[in-house]
Amino acid sequence: MSATIVIFGASGDLTQRKLIPALFNLCRKRRLPAHVRIVGVARTKHTDQSFLGILREGALKFSGGGWDEDDWTHFARRVHYFPGDASRSEDMGALKNYLAEMENGDANRLYYLSTAPNLYIPITANLGAHGMAAEAEGWRRVIIEKPIGYDLKTALELNDSVHRSFSEPQVYRIDHYLGKETAQNIMFLRFANTIFEPVWNRNYVEYVQVTVAESVDVGTRGDYYDHAGVLRDMFQNHLLQLLALVAMEPPPSFDADKVRNETVKVLNSIRPVPLQDTVRAQYRGYRETPGVAPDSQTPTYAALKLHVDNWRWQGVPFYLRSGKALSRKDSEIVIRFRRPPHLMFELPPGGEFEPNTLSICIQPDEGIHLKFEAKIPDSLRETRSVDMEFHYRDSFKESIIPEAYERLLMDALNGDASLFVRSDGVEVSWRLIDPILRGWESPEAPPLALYERGEWGPLEADELLARDGHKWRHGCGEHE
Amino acid sequence: MSATIVIFGASGDLTQRKLIPALFNLCRKRRLPAHVRIVGVARTKHTDQSFLGILREGALKFSGGGWDEDDWTHFARRVHYFPGDASRSEDMGALKNYLAEMENGDANRLYYLSTAPNLYIPITANLGAHGMAAEAEGWRRVIIEKPIGYDLKTALELNDSVHRSFSEPQVYRIDHYLGKETAQNIMFLRFANTIFEPVWNRNYVEYVQVTVAESVDVGTRGDYYDHAGVLRDMFQNHLLQLLALVAMEPPPSFDADKVRNETVKVLNSIRPVPLQDTVRAQYRGYRETPGVAPDSQTPTYAALKLHVDNWRWQGVPFYLRSGKALSRKDSEIVIRFRRPPHLMFELPPGGEFEPNTLSICIQPDEGIHLKFEAKIPDSLRETRSVDMEFHYRDSFKESIIPEAYERLLMDALNGDASLFVRSDGVEVSWRLIDPILRGWESPEAPPLALYERGEWGPLEADELLARDGHKWRHGCGEHE
Repeated sequence: MSATIVIFGASGDLTQRKLIPALFNLCRKRRLPAHVRIVGVARTKHTDQSFLGILREGALKFSGGGWDEDDWTHFARRVHYFPGDASRSEDMGALKNYLAEMENGDANRLYYLSTAPNLYIPITANLGAHGMAAEAEGWRRVIIEKPIGYDLKTALELNDSVHRSFSEPQVYRIDHYLGKETAQNIMFLRFANTIFEPVWNRNYVEYVQVTVAESVDVGTRGDYYDHAGVLRDMFQNHLLQLLALVAMEPPPSFDADKVRNETVKVLNSIRPVPLQDTVRAQYRGYRETPGVAPDSQTPTYAALKLHVDNWRWQGVPFYLRSGKALSRKDSEIVIRFRRPPHLMFELPPGGEFEPNTLSICIQPDEGIHLKFEAKIPDSLRETRSVDMEFHYRDSFKESIIPEAYERLLMDALNGDASLFVRSDGVEVSWRLIDPILRGWESPEAPPLALYERGEWGPLEADELLARDGHKWRHGCGEHE
Repeated sequence: MSATIVIFGASGDLTQRKLIPALFNLCRKRRLPAHVRIVGVARTKHTDQSFLGILREGALKFSGGGWDEDDWTHFARRVHYFPGDASRSEDMGALKNYLAEMENGDANRLYYLSTAPNLYIPITANLGAHGMAAEAEGWRRVIIEKPIGYDLKTALELNDSVHRSFSEPQVYRIDHYLGKETAQNIMFLRFANTIFEPVWNRNYVEYVQVTVAESVDVGTRGDYYDHAGVLRDMFQNHLLQLLALVAMEPPPSFDADKVRNETVKVLNSIRPVPLQDTVRAQYRGYRETPGVAPDSQTPTYAALKLHVDNWRWQGVPFYLRSGKALSRKDSEIVIRFRRPPHLMFELPPGGEFEPNTLSICIQPDEGIHLKFEAKIPDSLRETRSVDMEFHYRDSFKESIIPEAYERLLMDALNGDASLFVRSDGVEVSWRLIDPILRGWESPEAPPLALYERGEWGPLEADELLARDGHKWRHGCGEHE
């Protein structure tokens, strides 16, 4: 059966930079089924041709690999534009007719909400009102971009409202971090191998760190960012989802609901976070950003210490941090193991073994690093930490690591929701983040720390770990 | 206190190729204490100068690194030559006086037996008879080179005879494999790290392989080799010692006797080997080697399947193989892990996960390789085995991996016997190998298989593993 991908908010940045390059790449790789067409919807007055002009620019710039004009011509035939305001009933009615005429019979439909978040409720309601969520003439799925809500209350409202038109299995909440190869590979690393899972628990793990560092600052997004802040922008979604992949129990199968049962279960096991286990900070100069309030209290950096209250992780701290204008772009997960239980080697005075560290490098240098102790050659008993490394780009030279959106769009077309967030997954994350957000607005809030651009965040974040005798670690990329 | 190293059999190959280059290197590295002198003893009529001429040639060729004539001059001052037959009482008496005069007071002494093995008993007896093993005027230690006995009976005789002159703590039985950096590092890998030991047992290990492959053939050593064969030459010592390092329990400390208690204990746990678990083979052309009997039955290759009857290893086969004229020089230990207990990923038809494999590469490319499964980027659920690698030469660029003899000579001078074989260690190895040697001379012997030079041994060795559903693996160097 043919399928139509309807992108709402098609004149926006995401469509040009991510969605169309991803779809174009899928087309070039002959993965996009022949009868998939793409309809862009937005209020801007475009023709198919003027719309395609913008998309072509984006594809040239962001699709990667060599450019073949024939590929584009072939792809462009699938693309159409429908000008209209999808939150208005008459425009939706017109779109319905337009699609029906184009599809000329039964067809599946994937709606992509790439609009401002305040349009998610009106558009999904409008789709429901016009019978466009009903699956009589093919399946209907809807992809929703982050942010999913502004807090727990609005997230619940959004989920409820969407559920009035779409049943949960029709809803694909995208978290592009889950589409990244290395994030997916956490599950393969843990469950397709024998040697990691036996040490993946409180008996052997001292602590876990999740870092998602950005080197860019807020840039032109001051207006959006100043209302969001780092917890909403990064923690509620990406960091908690990464934590869930690291900490979850093995699902019985790779089936979407079985995987998500486990991620939700582990997120549900996280202990409410006391404010003293949180650090909030802002880089110097943030308040001069256009769109940002001159007395803004919005954090551009946060660090949290979490505890997972279950059998596997009791007593193992999970340290999460993320921020803007940091030293470099770096997303990684560090599993720090305990010291060997017994030291049978005489160490030189002041000498110590460095405990083993497994680092899962998500970006920019996708791979795995394992730090272990080896004897220094030609020494009696001195050891040194050495790095055993695996880099995707070395081992899989033939394949280019695709953009997360390629995988996620293809999965949504195929009805595989494993890498999308279920409504209860969104809600449990908010249940965790919401009290911190409120705490940070209360008199008990920890002071807003300041940090310099190009460093690794505020001293307070180091102190958070120093209290436990721990420190932030970088296992990936160039070592400091 | 000053010390004298007395090398018996000093005109032989080992002195020129290994001992003097090692001592010269220790001297250059300023590790050889200032008052250590070296006395070569042999029947050849040499002066100090003519002896040094030969040694210099050897040092030039075998000591590695740059050559500085000043270093050699500095070293050469320590070296002396005493012509004589150490198995004759009067010559030993004369040597005693020569050493006493030279030492001019109390001095420690390290005797190195680098002679033909049939002289070990007469020389140690002679040393004892002349009071030269007594430790009144400094310590006295004796290093004995392999072969330690020709079978269990002669090994017991040799140990007994040596013990009549020297107490066991004075005796340093050298196994140069234990002096290799990577062999030593097996203990550091296992016991200085947290993550390996938890999976180092029957619950996670499917089997273990020890390969010591030589690409060279018997060469000019036909006469010696045809009487020894591969079991005496390689298994009784090197392969069983490597197995012991891999399989032993953690010792309470790195102390010589505590380490050797554990290696002896694990060798004592090896089940007697039924002949059907042995393969003996000879490369084609071996019988044409000078010194080899034209109808020789001497194996130049063997493969054994062993079982370690203890709590840790019950049911895990240990496959050992070694041979001459094989495809390439390659000493490695392969730990093959079990498959993951549960397969949650749908595999493509016929697809299978490759179990994890940890390879400890001893020579020529010292390092560690870990094979694990990773998802192929841009695929849905396909995985592939990838290699995570650690190479000594990359991680320790500043240090040249030293020859085993450097470490072992220094340890003997320092009185550290951890890397030397204790008498009970020799005996337990012979108790294991002796019945196989006798079995191979009996009517129940497996047929002597033949193999082509430059291949990986006979088909029979593959069949030995195929019966268990296993196969020989190479985790190090270039993969086939």
